[in-house]
Amino acid sequence: MPALRKLTPEPGFTLQEIPVPSIGPSDVLIRVEMAGVCGTDAHIYWWDKWAQNRIHPPLTIGHEFMGRVEAVGAAVKAVSVGERVSAEGHIACGVCLLCRTGEAHICEHVKIIGVDTDGCFATYIAMPEVNVWKLDPAIPDEFAAVFDPLGNAVHTVMAAGVSTKSVAIMGVGSIGLMAIPVARAAGAARVFAIDVNPSKLELASRVGADETFLGTDSNLVDEILKRTNGDGVDVLLEMSGSGAAIDKGLAMVRNGGRAALLGIPSEDININLAERIIFKGLTVLGINGRRMFETWYQTQALVKSGRVDLRAIITHVLPFEQFDRAFELMKSGEAAKIVLDLKGLSSEFLI
Amino acid sequence: MPALRKLTPEPGFTLQEIPVPSIGPSDVLIRVEMAGVCGTDAHIYWWDKWAQNRIHPPLTIGHEFMGRVEAVGAAVKAVSVGERVSAEGHIACGVCLLCRTGEAHICEHVKIIGVDTDGCFATYIAMPEVNVWKLDPAIPDEFAAVFDPLGNAVHTVMAAGVSTKSVAIMGVGSIGLMAIPVARAAGAARVFAIDVNPSKLELASRVGADETFLGTDSNLVDEILKRTNGDGVDVLLEMSGSGAAIDKGLAMVRNGGRAALLGIPSEDININLAERIIFKGLTVLGINGRRMFETWYQTQALVKSGRVDLRAIITHVLPFEQFDRAFELMKSGEAAKIVLDLKGLSSEFLI
Amino acid sequence: MPALRKLTPEPGFTLQEIPVPSIGPSDVLIRVEMAGVCGTDAHIYWWDKWAQNRIHPPLTIGHEFMGRVEAVGAAVKAVSVGERVSAEGHIACGVCLLCRTGEAHICEHVKIIGVDTDGCFATYIAMPEVNVWKLDPAIPDEFAAVFDPLGNAVHTVMAAGVSTKSVAIMGVGSIGLMAIPVARAAGAARVFAIDVNPSKLELASRVGADETFLGTDSNLVDEILKRTNGDGVDVLLEMSGSGAAIDKGLAMVRNGGRAALLGIPSEDININLAERIIFKGLTVLGINGRRMFETWYQTQALVKSGRVDLRAIITHVLPFEQFDRAFELMKSGEAAKIVLDLKGLSSEFLI
Amino acid sequence: MPALRKLTPEPGFTLQEIPVPSIGPSDVLIRVEMAGVCGTDAHIYWWDKWAQNRIHPPLTIGHEFMGRVEAVGAAVKAVSVGERVSAEGHIACGVCLLCRTGEAHICEHVKIIGVDTDGCFATYIAMPEVNVWKLDPAIPDEFAAVFDPLGNAVHTVMAAGVSTKSVAIMGVGSIGLMAIPVARAAGAARVFAIDVNPSKLELASRVGADETFLGTDSNLVDEILKRTNGDGVDVLLEMSGSGAAIDKGLAMVRNGGRAALLGIPSEDININLAERIIFKGLTVLGINGRRMFETWYQTQALVKSGRVDLRAIITHVLPFEQFDRAFELMKSGEAAKIVLDLKGLSSEFLI
Repeated sequence: MPALRKLTPEPGFTLQEIPVPSIGPSDVLIRVEMAGVCGTDAHIYWWDKWAQNRIHPPLTIGHEFMGRVEAVGAAVKAVSVGERVSAEGHIACGVCLLCRTGEAHICEHVKIIGVDTDGCFATYIAMPEVNVWKLDPAIPDEFAAVFDPLGNAVHTVMAAGVSTKSVAIMGVGSIGLMAIPVARAAGAARVFAIDVNPSKLELASRVGADETFLGTDSNLVDEILKRTNGDGVDVLLEMSGSGAAIDKGLAMVRNGGRAALLGIPSEDININLAERIIFKGLTVLGINGRRMFETWYQTQALVKSGRVDLRAIITHVLPFEQFDRAFELMKSGEAAKIVLDLKGLSSEFLI
Repeated sequence: MPALRKLTPEPGFTLQEIPVPSIGPSDVLIRVEMAGVCGTDAHIYWWDKWAQNRIHPPLTIGHEFMGRVEAVGAAVKAVSVGERVSAEGHIACGVCLLCRTGEAHICEHVKIIGVDTDGCFATYIAMPEVNVWKLDPAIPDEFAAVFDPLGNAVHTVMAAGVSTKSVAIMGVGSIGLMAIPVARAAGAARVFAIDVNPSKLELASRVGADETFLGTDSNLVDEILKRTNGDGVDVLLEMSGSGAAIDKGLAMVRNGGRAALLGIPSEDININLAERIIFKGLTVLGINGRRMFETWYQTQALVKSGRVDLRAIITHVLPFEQFDRAFELMKSGEAAKIVLDLKGLSSEFLI
Repeated sequence: MPALRKLTPEPGFTLQEIPVPSIGPSDVLIRVEMAGVCGTDAHIYWWDKWAQNRIHPPLTIGHEFMGRVEAVGAAVKAVSVGERVSAEGHIACGVCLLCRTGEAHICEHVKIIGVDTDGCFATYIAMPEVNVWKLDPAIPDEFAAVFDPLGNAVHTVMAAGVSTKSVAIMGVGSIGLMAIPVARAAGAARVFAIDVNPSKLELASRVGADETFLGTDSNLVDEILKRTNGDGVDVLLEMSGSGAAIDKGLAMVRNGGRAALLGIPSEDININLAERIIFKGLTVLGINGRRMFETWYQTQALVKSGRVDLRAIITHVLPFEQFDRAFELMKSGEAAKIVLDLKGLSSEFLI
Repeated sequence: MPALRKLTPEPGFTLQEIPVPSIGPSDVLIRVEMAGVCGTDAHIYWWDKWAQNRIHPPLTIGHEFMGRVEAVGAAVKAVSVGERVSAEGHIACGVCLLCRTGEAHICEHVKIIGVDTDGCFATYIAMPEVNVWKLDPAIPDEFAAVFDPLGNAVHTVMAAGVSTKSVAIMGVGSIGLMAIPVARAAGAARVFAIDVNPSKLELASRVGADETFLGTDSNLVDEILKRTNGDGVDVLLEMSGSGAAIDKGLAMVRNGGRAALLGIPSEDININLAERIIFKGLTVLGINGRRMFETWYQTQALVKSGRVDLRAIITHVLPFEQFDRAFELMKSGEAAKIVLDLKGLSSEFLI
């Protein structure tokens, strides 16, 4: 089958013909139909420092997808051939403290598809049955293909708790953008979006932000305080990973507020712990992945309610073979979220 | 000043001229402009068994209102003459365990205006400064007048926790109706409304219920299960106070779900504790009043967000002197929520 | 192998030779060494109404045990032959909403060993790997054999939350007794034990209750209020299943307190929901089983800390063949908790 | 009356005769009997950088005390002359969002006695009635005098949640030491104490730490992991305020664990947010002051239970006039907690 792979330690991916993966007794073989392109994939494509440290070629890339079940192992109980599914890309060990206490999303021995093991940018992927998520017919394919990052947004929003709250979203890349309709649907009373990129802020407004702010504005924190009775926002959703943004973000949270951190700083940050967290009595939450499978149920409920519409955020659905263009579009900032369509994929175009 | 009072232990109220209340150093005198009529007031008006046991005439009735500050005591710090205000009608003792731990809404020695002490169906009412709530200019008078029952709905919804959840509201009297837009704005994914009165269900649909059900339908629980993948709803908001409804309501909650009980049964109920609560691992919450003042902040945020609109629920705004008509309208079921307008009130019409 | 079985719908058990159970690829075969006798087993032994409705003979009884792994299926990953283990007796479906959200203890399709499927009163039992709990060497065999009911106590205590709290335990049968050292070790500031049986209260004092009370005392609630500044206790652990006791128990909880219900009433109870739960703003928790496997980790931590000592509660360790005596001792009230020793068990004594 | 005051911007305090404070209608005048000496007082005494920025002489120092009510204002309702009391030293504004939602301990406009306003190192202090805490007769004077820092320890422990958990306490100065018996009494299964000072670790063992570790040990984190099955501790109580210690502390917390930060870093710290907080899914809590008055109730319950004994921690009770010696003892590290006895205080020794 064709698979998009990192073959050598240098920029770019190669579309390569490889064998269809075999499945064990508890595994499910899925024919991939649509797959989301993630910032992580771009790191691997461009072969940045993070990728050089983390990725061991050769590897099939991709971790966000939906498709149809092609085959199931002998011990598979609840998934059938032909079912329309997505899957959780974090493969948890199942036996550590976290896995045994309902916290498998922070499993100590997690393996991530497309990062630690072969991923979904291929005609087929094998997944443990326990990772498979059956898709409700009401969920469009494009949305189903990005349940993984949408789940990041949902997990962040739900961990923070936004019902009736004022919420600042720091950084509106594709997950930050998704967090806007998610936060509103989950009950946020007001959503402020902040980014350094004006075109992202425009998109943020379109998908439901009450107000948007340039992160470079030197009055940013004061402007937020002005709009929140001088108290600050109830909740910060940190999705930028920038040290300066984190500092401003924490500064704009009210005493006793909550900050959920999803964005990954690429290096150590400097922080005034006393002023930003301790004296204010903040609750700061590290967010990783998506709860298995509470977040998936929540994501499904939100999408089915009709209140989380990703059409403006999925700016491009491209044929799979245009993967190079996808990474260029992401690099240029023209794209928010890109979905690759693998339905027409056949081995022929490899020739 | 004119005041609507229960003077003798029998049905009906009397509009009587009484002295303007005096205020202590920590009190605020408020000129009442609009006041909501509550089911409790109707119990007192019609002098039912509950009222006979609880109320000691003579007493000025009414506990939901908004108005303007007319005068403040010497020790009042944060409220000024002329300010537009509502007030929490539960006067807490301030010194019990509950009051000292942020749970004044369940103070052991609470006194309720219009029930235990003189109420707001009068030109003026005196309130402790600590009970006063300053109104945001964006809140219409009619809505501000019913912040008390709206707060009951908000407290119930927020205690239950509805973000991304399926919610059944059992009983859509005026508070149950308010709970519909509140639950949706607070993040409920789906809202099912149940009542024995079809006209209330019609109103429930108008204010945002996804589906409505007759409480008398013998398949009620099955119908709810059918719509929730056989699991049952995540959350029950019990607002009927009927034993039969509570039984059905608990039956339709999923294992591990939450039930918030606001409706007050008039007598003991019979319950299969094992099947309805224990085996299912339910969390059942008794709800009383509104949190001081977390619920008030939440209510304000919801109304200001524009997502909680009470216009369809406040079916009547009547001049104060039509109070008898108000209680007839409530008795007949024609009214959902009635607000009395006291702005034109003068002593003259007493003559 | 020998197994203690209910063969016909009448009182008593039969020790019968049956085949050693076969195991599937994900199962573990365990050689049972010690097994606890539960009230549930007594219901089945004496064949009361509940048993008549629930149990379908023939069935091997017993659900609390520890032993050694004898064999493992081909797909078993983390359990090895020879390991010393106990096991969770609730076999969850693994695919329902509850199972997939960390709430498998209230799985919609749970099967309980010794109730729904063959149990542990036998030389061998087959269990799914996922149910197996490896025992820390510091845990004595007798304690390990009763991790199931001890886990009920731990789950109840931890769900209620007892740190720095005053706690009333209503009903000190074997689980209620276990809840005393558990509550103390988990941080309860004061523990009041209540029962109708004075000898159980004596035992309650020995295992750490600060004060004990006869449930028949007409001043019971007043006495509790007197000891809690008139407020009532912070937490009720309901372990009696008696309607009258539940009423008194709820009456002695303070406003805003928490009540965790583990005891199973055998029929409907009558309750004044308004006075007992709603006006007080109580949180009432239905408790079922033990969290998988959070409760097991907690139980292990408590026992290893040395602060939960069950020696006074396990009043009898009997050779397995004295099972009839065990049920007589339980009936007479002479025993608190009985553990059966199966180590010397061989097929020979069946002859 | 005599009062210990900072009169000029330089090291040292002066015992000065000043007028007895007058009280307003809602205030209580308290005759101070015993007062704790805090690290904050030492900062002010030695006039370090923090003190130079924060303190505006002249000022009476001291914020931890107990005494007897000497007089009450006209509007005081629940406190009487002669009562034995302590008091919360954070004077909250009463009207901000935090004050009105049960979070007065993080009031936006808080004033702290002995820091922002005149403190308790004097014969008399005036306090708002709402700040006064009536002392249970079972609480010894010396313990009552340090309810403020003991409350810091209790607030930290209770916010973190320690029932059945493994707990690392980073930094065992006087509050860290108090946190040891508090954590144990509140239900911690294991307590590890860490400090750079071996004599503090010795004291830590005496008051109940299961194991102690030198913070300078390069294998520290590994040693903790070894004792926690490789997972790390469930809970970190950060009481050192040192950047290096915070880094190690966070490194030793397990995925999904909780870290409560009480220690105040004197400058910005450097942190690997990705590794230390985000990927692990930690919950990090900023801790400030004590909850009013939930923490006070908890503290009282713990001390009355007999399980929190401060006798080994209060290393010195000195006559008030030996205040200089107190600060020298603290500087040398000879003292853990020092209490000053003001009972024998008269104006005479000023001469």
